[in-house]
Amino acid sequence: MMSERDRLQRWRNQIGEELDRVMNFWIEHSHDQESGGFFTCLGQNGERYDDLKYIWLQGRQVWMYCRLYRKVPRFRKQEVLSAAIAGGKFLMDHGRPTAGSLKCAFVVTRDGRAVKIQRTIFSECFFIMAMDELWRTTQEERYKMEAWKTMDQIVHWVREDPSGLGRPELPGAGPVNAMAVPMMLLNLVDQLSEDNEEAARKYEELGTWSVGKILQHIQRDGKAILENVSDDGTELPGCIGRHQNPGHAIEAGWFLLRQAIAQANKTLAQTALEKFVLPPFQTGWDKEYGGLFYFQDVDGYCPTQLEWSMKLWWPHTEALIAFLLGYLETKDSQLLEHFQKVFDYTFSKFSDPEHGEWFGYLNREGKVELSIKGGPFKGCFHVPRCLYMCEEILSKLLNEHNMA
Amino acid sequence: MMSERDRLQRWRNQIGEELDRVMNFWIEHSHDQESGGFFTCLGQNGERYDDLKYIWLQGRQVWMYCRLYRKVPRFRKQEVLSAAIAGGKFLMDHGRPTAGSLKCAFVVTRDGRAVKIQRTIFSECFFIMAMDELWRTTQEERYKMEAWKTMDQIVHWVREDPSGLGRPELPGAGPVNAMAVPMMLLNLVDQLSEDNEEAARKYEELGTWSVGKILQHIQRDGKAILENVSDDGTELPGCIGRHQNPGHAIEAGWFLLRQAIAQANKTLAQTALEKFVLPPFQTGWDKEYGGLFYFQDVDGYCPTQLEWSMKLWWPHTEALIAFLLGYLETKDSQLLEHFQKVFDYTFSKFSDPEHGEWFGYLNREGKVELSIKGGPFKGCFHVPRCLYMCEEILSKLLNEHNMA
Repeated sequence: MMSERDRLQRWRNQIGEELDRVMNFWIEHSHDQESGGFFTCLGQNGERYDDLKYIWLQGRQVWMYCRLYRKVPRFRKQEVLSAAIAGGKFLMDHGRPTAGSLKCAFVVTRDGRAVKIQRTIFSECFFIMAMDELWRTTQEERYKMEAWKTMDQIVHWVREDPSGLGRPELPGAGPVNAMAVPMMLLNLVDQLSEDNEEAARKYEELGTWSVGKILQHIQRDGKAILENVSDDGTELPGCIGRHQNPGHAIEAGWFLLRQAIAQANKTLAQTALEKFVLPPFQTGWDKEYGGLFYFQDVDGYCPTQLEWSMKLWWPHTEALIAFLLGYLETKDSQLLEHFQKVFDYTFSKFSDPEHGEWFGYLNREGKVELSIKGGPFKGCFHVPRCLYMCEEILSKLLNEHNMA
Repeated sequence: MMSERDRLQRWRNQIGEELDRVMNFWIEHSHDQESGGFFTCLGQNGERYDDLKYIWLQGRQVWMYCRLYRKVPRFRKQEVLSAAIAGGKFLMDHGRPTAGSLKCAFVVTRDGRAVKIQRTIFSECFFIMAMDELWRTTQEERYKMEAWKTMDQIVHWVREDPSGLGRPELPGAGPVNAMAVPMMLLNLVDQLSEDNEEAARKYEELGTWSVGKILQHIQRDGKAILENVSDDGTELPGCIGRHQNPGHAIEAGWFLLRQAIAQANKTLAQTALEKFVLPPFQTGWDKEYGGLFYFQDVDGYCPTQLEWSMKLWWPHTEALIAFLLGYLETKDSQLLEHFQKVFDYTFSKFSDPEHGEWFGYLNREGKVELSIKGGPFKGCFHVPRCLYMCEEILSKLLNEHNMA
């Protein structure tokens, strides 16, 4: 049997090589040298099938490039930095179509004209991630100002007055605590506070509030994570109340775990693993064909989303991060076995060693259903973020072995 | 070999029995005796899994009940009429949440409080269908007034000023001729004009305009129907421009065919069959597993919609209507063979003889992927409309045989 050290080493090697192949795909195919920003509608071989630019994905790619440039020596290349800066310029020039408003578009044309604006905060969230990471990479203050200013705006929309988002108030639609919102805010607090005491102080209360709002999603006597609850943390009636998204719960788990580690909060770490990571993994894993279901109904009704039983790439990348981070924190070997299970499924089903990057959408049985590598919701983000984070955690674990 | 007469007779019997089973499902499970209107979130056995009421489906069910009550003697029952009237009352009491506006909600709570409003005209279209059919069934003028008043409003939104729909104008989103809009308008002209000279005169120009806007979707030298074109009928760039929905094109085909038959317009009938029905059927039919794909890309790129390869019930019901109506008009026996092919696929895969109604969502291979019988977009409409229309057409064809 392989020693744990060898096992960690082998994973780190495989993951590092995969990260290189994945990033090569984006560097080769996605840069728009003409209008700036990134193409993300790319087919299996990297061929472009649409010019539209999705702002979530523009922000995420800028973030990813900067993060790799800043943290992983082999990506500290001018090509990576220049593309990130060009992406940041595209975001600042075209991300916000309405004069006098910080509201970002959801999608723009190749040259930056707004096509659609969502009445949510997510485009703005990824705009902030891009700007904060650009500031850390270039040390130019203007990026930080953009990030902080936009952060203040979305916190205002979420916690004080949502009217600026443009959603009508309707008598049948009470306020909903959708887990994505406090998750994104917690993730942004994590991002903005890195090695920055001023930000850490400024956003400490927001972090605590976000954790509280995420914990409200623990329902059914602690046995289930529900995506949508009422504003005071009770279960909502109907499909919306019973809706589960295992990958999202697991992602929330590692967001909470990072917060717990930063604060040396053992109780929160335990909650993250025992409530957000493990039960959604157990109930969300398809016993018949493997892989995590996209959506489930906590009472076992059939979900109404047509794609409910598909296997998407990102729930699996989030599970890889969650199990490895959980192991780093707890050294519970069960977590490594779960990691192995997801790793084997993922690398055999999603990865495309021939052309790079991963397929994103398998059918329930695990067959590639959409051959695209990028699209309106898939860009240079979940796969490289996962690989970069796993490589970093594995390196820490290997260092611990070397020190022992 | 079976004679054509026997073949038609056998289809009519099977279809008539299926219509009874389907309507029994809705009559047994969907009536809300407490708040009025219809439940449509119903599982395989008719069990209710949500209370929400989708206005498209409320309007469609009222229309279906009235139409059957009015046209098919075995459905001329007090129970059917009372449920339709109660559904109409629910629509009038709760369908329009905004004081002073004819804008309908998309979905309301069980007791009628608005949950969501779409920035399109479709809820209003099904509201009009319900009201016009209620007027024809009950002879109460107030229904007709509601229908005509709402019709004037949506025509204004479509042809003069869309600002009342609440969609922002964005520089990257030029006006699009989405085929659904002129299709719905043509369908409404057909509905409102039945045996009514005043309406026929009032809406004649709108019918002609709608036909023209639908014909703009013939693209690629007449070889393809594209769902979205520019306002002046040219192809749009990117995924939106290449998007195809075979079932929708086929449905447009029979809408056009009805218009052609009403106007004794042989050229239009030929266009309907040779452009809208046959090519989308040929290219949309899955050669490997059978059934019509939900979405396609005219250039063969992979669509970005996760459900693109699924087999939905309604493209198949529309194909059944189109082939039978086409045969009634042309007596081209090839159309009967196509009807047979779709009939066999449909009755073996979608129909649920045990509990009634049809499954709505199969995976590409033809396995039931969602076990629901009704949901946010599936109610008492496409299946019974198809069965009722096919029964009626088959009866006409059998009468012709008897006369011959």
